[in-house]
Amino acid sequence: MSTAEPGLADIQAARERIAPHVHVTPICRSALLDAHCGARVAFKCENLQKAGAFKARGANNAVFSLVEADARRGVATHSSGNHGAALAQAARGRDIAAHIVMPASAPAVKKQAVAAYGGHIIECAPTLAAREAALAQLVAATGAHVVHPFTDPRVIAGQGTVALEILEQVPDLDVVVVPVGGGGLLAGVAIAIKSLRPSVEVVAAEPAGADDAFRSFGLGELQPQNAPDTIADGLLAGLGELNFALIQRHVDTILTVTDDNIVAAMRLQWSRLKTVVEPSGAVSFAALLEHPERFRGRNVVAVISGGNLDPDGLPW
Amino acid sequence: MSTAEPGLADIQAARERIAPHVHVTPICRSALLDAHCGARVAFKCENLQKAGAFKARGANNAVFSLVEADARRGVATHSSGNHGAALAQAARGRDIAAHIVMPASAPAVKKQAVAAYGGHIIECAPTLAAREAALAQLVAATGAHVVHPFTDPRVIAGQGTVALEILEQVPDLDVVVVPVGGGGLLAGVAIAIKSLRPSVEVVAAEPAGADDAFRSFGLGELQPQNAPDTIADGLLAGLGELNFALIQRHVDTILTVTDDNIVAAMRLQWSRLKTVVEPSGAVSFAALLEHPERFRGRNVVAVISGGNLDPDGLPW
Repeated sequence: MSTAEPGLADIQAARERIAPHVHVTPICRSALLDAHCGARVAFKCENLQKAGAFKARGANNAVFSLVEADARRGVATHSSGNHGAALAQAARGRDIAAHIVMPASAPAVKKQAVAAYGGHIIECAPTLAAREAALAQLVAATGAHVVHPFTDPRVIAGQGTVALEILEQVPDLDVVVVPVGGGGLLAGVAIAIKSLRPSVEVVAAEPAGADDAFRSFGLGELQPQNAPDTIADGLLAGLGELNFALIQRHVDTILTVTDDNIVAAMRLQWSRLKTVVEPSGAVSFAALLEHPERFRGRNVVAVISGGNLDPDGLPW
Repeated sequence: MSTAEPGLADIQAARERIAPHVHVTPICRSALLDAHCGARVAFKCENLQKAGAFKARGANNAVFSLVEADARRGVATHSSGNHGAALAQAARGRDIAAHIVMPASAPAVKKQAVAAYGGHIIECAPTLAAREAALAQLVAATGAHVVHPFTDPRVIAGQGTVALEILEQVPDLDVVVVPVGGGGLLAGVAIAIKSLRPSVEVVAAEPAGADDAFRSFGLGELQPQNAPDTIADGLLAGLGELNFALIQRHVDTILTVTDDNIVAAMRLQWSRLKTVVEPSGAVSFAALLEHPERFRGRNVVAVISGGNLDPDGLPW
């Protein structure tokens, strides 16, 4: 796996590479939400992406970047969330195996999502050490190629394709708001935006209960994620090192949001946009609710990063 | 109010008239739902319509059909559901008053929706007699023009504009499935489809617990709605007389569905389409779940008629 920094050319190449395998997702708007925020807000609906999240972009870019000999041995990752399903979806598109290490305790819907795309699930104990051991064992046995959910440059480039679509769909945007967890989506979007339209502000939104990116950005040094506690279960990972370097260079600011505002954002998106948003996906709009003065009167794009929310597990 | 039968020309005129005031709603699809149904299913997303339901089409057509002298006295209706909010939205677009008679017991979200569009709410006791008395009193006092939710030919013509969009968006369709309550949407869609593409089958879907259309259609004579009992609270009204005549002439068949299948349809649309569908809006897809053999291998359009579902009131 390369650790070279991805740039605009990589993102543009990713867009061509993944075009047959992912959706160009729509923008949606609501006059009532605009009035509520005092801004013009365009929502980029990655909850309508293949496998229900932006993760399909990076996973497809990684899978379709492999040379044939590598691809034939399959791909692997450990994931309790959207990356696992996305990698399975991408692997099916290339007709290769996807091995997904998941904690036995992962929600049934997450396992079903991986299985629905034909992914091979390997269960393990719910610790990072157990996951890594299971993945290492699997790779030794199969020779499968590991695709990391957010530090892989091909994944970052894939996620950056969201921004190319945004710039075409909302030509007059002033500011884009992106959730941050491991930092793959944020880094990719920031590189593309600052390369093509440097006047557009790039704002990251992070749960206050998992604020390593906020602290790292403020101190100028990568800080660990300490015992994260937030409803946004897709944003628990600590920032990757490569991601942090890219974010330092290309992101303008990081705002934190409370879980209360995340839930309020989900409910408003439900009521006004009729769209199902998972907690992590609502963090961008929560930033508009929590920091309205920063966005007043501006043309905002808020990225809805995913919509994989269990119908039986509403957080209210 | 005219009781002339609306025809294709009225629907085409309605489309031009309402174009500035309503959305052309998108089609969405899911490969997994196609596999689930053994058919190619395009969902027409009227839950993304203004005010969250197809009702905005008919209401805007009625409001913008009024001559100026009539319009100036405002419009009125009684409604505990989507028609009230739609009429308020339409009236605001013309800058005239909308008086909506609602039972005091109506859900807070329904009242909020009317109020959010500037509608004037008149509360009454929760009986049809009380509603009609309150409406008559209001009309006597204000001279407001009454817009019936489904028997008004301008409303039927407005609802029929859904079908003009469907024919352009899904040119290869074989069959369209439409929920039926009072019959405004069904009649309008059926007229447009049979006028323009008579080979397309028009199927109505109705809750088994409110099956007056099914019974009327089978007997060839309008039957009353007896003590309806279904989760699909937007489909409790009995079929209108004009609507029945149009449905007899233009609809191919009526299928009933259980409440269990309505809930199953809502959950699948949530999980796979990430879209919020109210029970009445899921009745069309429920027909595919309950009668799969009728649709196997065909190109189907299922109309999602609305998405006004209280986040605190999930039916599971």
